Amino acid sequence: MTEIAQIHTLSANLDENYKKIRKCVKDAQKKSVKMLIFPAFSLTGYPIADELKSHEFVIQCWDYIERLLKYTENLTVVLDIPFFWKKKLVHRLLWLENRKIKAFSDNSCGWNDVGLNFERYFKTSEQFQSPKIFNFGLAFASELEKKLEKSCEFEKWIVLDAWSFDYKTINSRIQYFCNLAKHHRVEIFLANAVGGQVSLILSGGSMHISSEGKILKQYSYFSESFLSSKIAKIPKSDIEWIYEALICGIRDYFYDRGLKRAVLGLSGGIDSAVVLPLVVEALGRKNVLGILLPSQYSSEHSIEDAVKSADNLGIDYHIIPIEQAFQTMYQTLLPIFGKRPFNLAEENLQARIRGMILMGISNKFGHVLLNTSNKSEAAVGYGTLYGDLCGGLAILGDLYKFQVYELANFINRKREIIPQNSINKAPSAELRPNQKDSDSLPEYDVLDAVLQLHLDRNLSEHEIVEKGFAPKIVKKILNLVRNSSYKRRQTAPQLRVSNSAFNIDRINVF
Amino acid sequence: MTEIAQIHTLSANLDENYKKIRKCVKDAQKKSVKMLIFPAFSLTGYPIADELKSHEFVIQCWDYIERLLKYTENLTVVLDIPFFWKKKLVHRLLWLENRKIKAFSDNSCGWNDVGLNFERYFKTSEQFQSPKIFNFGLAFASELEKKLEKSCEFEKWIVLDAWSFDYKTINSRIQYFCNLAKHHRVEIFLANAVGGQVSLILSGGSMHISSEGKILKQYSYFSESFLSSKIAKIPKSDIEWIYEALICGIRDYFYDRGLKRAVLGLSGGIDSAVVLPLVVEALGRKNVLGILLPSQYSSEHSIEDAVKSADNLGIDYHIIPIEQAFQTMYQTLLPIFGKRPFNLAEENLQARIRGMILMGISNKFGHVLLNTSNKSEAAVGYGTLYGDLCGGLAILGDLYKFQVYELANFINRKREIIPQNSINKAPSAELRPNQKDSDSLPEYDVLDAVLQLHLDRNLSEHEIVEKGFAPKIVKKILNLVRNSSYKRRQTAPQLRVSNSAFNIDRINVF
Repeated sequence: MTEIAQIHTLSANLDENYKKIRKCVKDAQKKSVKMLIFPAFSLTGYPIADELKSHEFVIQCWDYIERLLKYTENLTVVLDIPFFWKKKLVHRLLWLENRKIKAFSDNSCGWNDVGLNFERYFKTSEQFQSPKIFNFGLAFASELEKKLEKSCEFEKWIVLDAWSFDYKTINSRIQYFCNLAKHHRVEIFLANAVGGQVSLILSGGSMHISSEGKILKQYSYFSESFLSSKIAKIPKSDIEWIYEALICGIRDYFYDRGLKRAVLGLSGGIDSAVVLPLVVEALGRKNVLGILLPSQYSSEHSIEDAVKSADNLGIDYHIIPIEQAFQTMYQTLLPIFGKRPFNLAEENLQARIRGMILMGISNKFGHVLLNTSNKSEAAVGYGTLYGDLCGGLAILGDLYKFQVYELANFINRKREIIPQNSINKAPSAELRPNQKDSDSLPEYDVLDAVLQLHLDRNLSEHEIVEKGFAPKIVKKILNLVRNSSYKRRQTAPQLRVSNSAFNIDRINVF
Repeated sequence: MTEIAQIHTLSANLDENYKKIRKCVKDAQKKSVKMLIFPAFSLTGYPIADELKSHEFVIQCWDYIERLLKYTENLTVVLDIPFFWKKKLVHRLLWLENRKIKAFSDNSCGWNDVGLNFERYFKTSEQFQSPKIFNFGLAFASELEKKLEKSCEFEKWIVLDAWSFDYKTINSRIQYFCNLAKHHRVEIFLANAVGGQVSLILSGGSMHISSEGKILKQYSYFSESFLSSKIAKIPKSDIEWIYEALICGIRDYFYDRGLKRAVLGLSGGIDSAVVLPLVVEALGRKNVLGILLPSQYSSEHSIEDAVKSADNLGIDYHIIPIEQAFQTMYQTLLPIFGKRPFNLAEENLQARIRGMILMGISNKFGHVLLNTSNKSEAAVGYGTLYGDLCGGLAILGDLYKFQVYELANFINRKREIIPQNSINKAPSAELRPNQKDSDSLPEYDVLDAVLQLHLDRNLSEHEIVEKGFAPKIVKKILNLVRNSSYKRRQTAPQLRVSNSAFNIDRINVF
């Protein structure tokens, strides 16, 4: 019997990761498993970066393998480590069995995941010693296709991966491996890591695929899975994929750090109203604190809607008016501002007072402040640096505004959790009388359409205009994107769910 | 006559970069230059990232080359572009002459600079068509050594680079190229880009090296140079290199964005006292505004020292006490804080009020807020997120505390510019009565020594203890480094001067 131990690991925490691996090995032996496969980077944790520059760290990895070898009596264990070979660091896949390394294979073509420049650390290497007697080929996911094209001498392939989820690629990825299996008539055991790693959300969803390209066994998405007989649930729509990924991302961000409680500002607007049920689902309602921060520009319905969203979920909340603080800050700055008219400076003051209050509560009680801004806002810089852009983790930072609405409707599919009024009303920052987002930005449907063409498909201004959008509006949007990169550099890391996430897929040039 | 046009370019601004290239070509023709060499990425600007994903951007580069060709009568022009070859994007070096492309060479081994994961964009390629009749080899700096080892059929080499300065590597880099020239008995024309690009500071310092390894012509460091007869000044010490680099980085950050004026908080401490003369040197004293933000915990000497540092340089300053604002914020939070004792939450409130005031002034007047925190603080998270970590650019963000002192002494080498008291007194954040940095941190000499071993040499806790440091202190420091990465993700980009800069050389794992 061959099993995949689809585990969630801690980046660079060898001790904890080893304990988890060790426990899986022990359990596997009890259940008479013959072969146990771990996802890529199970020992080092993933993602991993500067630790790979430490000589001692690499040596320690080897020490753990030597310890693990003792427990491989009558059991094959497959996992990977960073390894020095001829003084170069290579990424090595190991086949442990009966206290010996029976086979190994070095990554021959680099690592195929977002953002991580592994060429800094690893040299590619063609070194391998392959267990032909077992009919098993060994590969990392990124090199599988090449290896299959080169030789089909193996009937079965063990494939290790640590793939960062994005909803755009997930379905074609599943299809890709099934097609490879079918085309080359090989059986594939694909072991994929799982769990939230700040921005990156590793999907899990390991698979055993037959040589006809059928999925024989499907491991769960977004949760650990090992020796489980539960039938894995597969999300049915883009928005369901996103929903499950976000819950996983929030849950692991807190859990991995030993954190429990979150605080967030509730404005009555759609963004915070959508973040709230996600966080409650991930952490439990007792671990979430809502703060309402009304100013003189807040409308009646804002407070009502915010209270309702808190009450719908049964969480604690406080109301802290910011008017007095704003007046004092205004007076403090009066000697230098003089009689200059009220403008962005005063608007930002309000957002920053809110940020300061939320961070104060975070500091005093140890709650993590969650950021509620979205990708459309981040793209055009519609947000106040050190104000509403504060927070430890941006839950919706990789969702366009239209996706925030889709998520709202998904969450409300059975009953009203998010107040319908938060969904229906026109978005507003409420930093001056009767302000609407559309005063400064194009309507969100146009904005989102243009942003998608630019960010997801890399189309230029000229090419987007050719699709039928007003040249003036396109120019304005693309200028905003360019000129607001300084804000994106300094905002909270976002949960990545797409393949065009800021600071990861799309690079800020320092 | 062969000339290098050591120019400073704007990232992704083809129009402006082309104009500059065009002007150099015109001037070269007037002066009867026979060959004109541009540094790497002169047309696209450097660094460059997501634009390389745009098909149209790459096509436009070619259009500019076609326009440029018209001006190559009796003149050889060498420069590089991104180029589609067999549907793959390659990084191509071009030899233009008499309206034709006479030779070209594709980058065969990747790009050798910090942080930029060019494997995302460019495929390596062995394609070249080489002008043997001229005895010139063509190469990017990263592939020169390999090419020289393969064949020495060329007597002269044209080498293009865009190298990001760091003070640790600069001298060995100069030596490296001289040694290559000597060893292979070839003449080298090394064209290197110049100028500040937010964090990265391209060094310039292009060279013409003889086949004996002697520098025949040295172009200037940290400033543009073309057809100049000025003798290039070469800094004499690490701290002089750093000083010149920082001035360049500040100057270009403002100049490239059409910005003029800077604002910064003056605390009377060493960090802001060192930033001030750097900014005054880069922007002129009329373009710098100092803000003093005393609280009830500020000591007399803090205000005196801050005023003196402003007066020494003749800049404008304002004093804005924050006590009233702190009292109001304290009262605002009282209903939720209750009778809990004064702690970090209240300390951070003060830092955030200061950040808010400075950002308010920045927003109202359009001045850029400069950040004054240093690398030692950033490493251990000694700073308030959204407070003293605010700003558009962190001037000292890549300097350890001891280097800040070295810089202070360098600046004061002729007369007292930085008040001696700011240099002499013990560092303090002054957020509670009689606070000293050493209350929460090890003494800076120990802290800096441990940080250097860890960050610059990648030594582990165990290895650092073996060097003779107290195990408890080492553990504490390394834990602080690990646990404060969430702050470094959100702080202002720093001017990079070392090869262990946060967020560039050292990676935040998302």
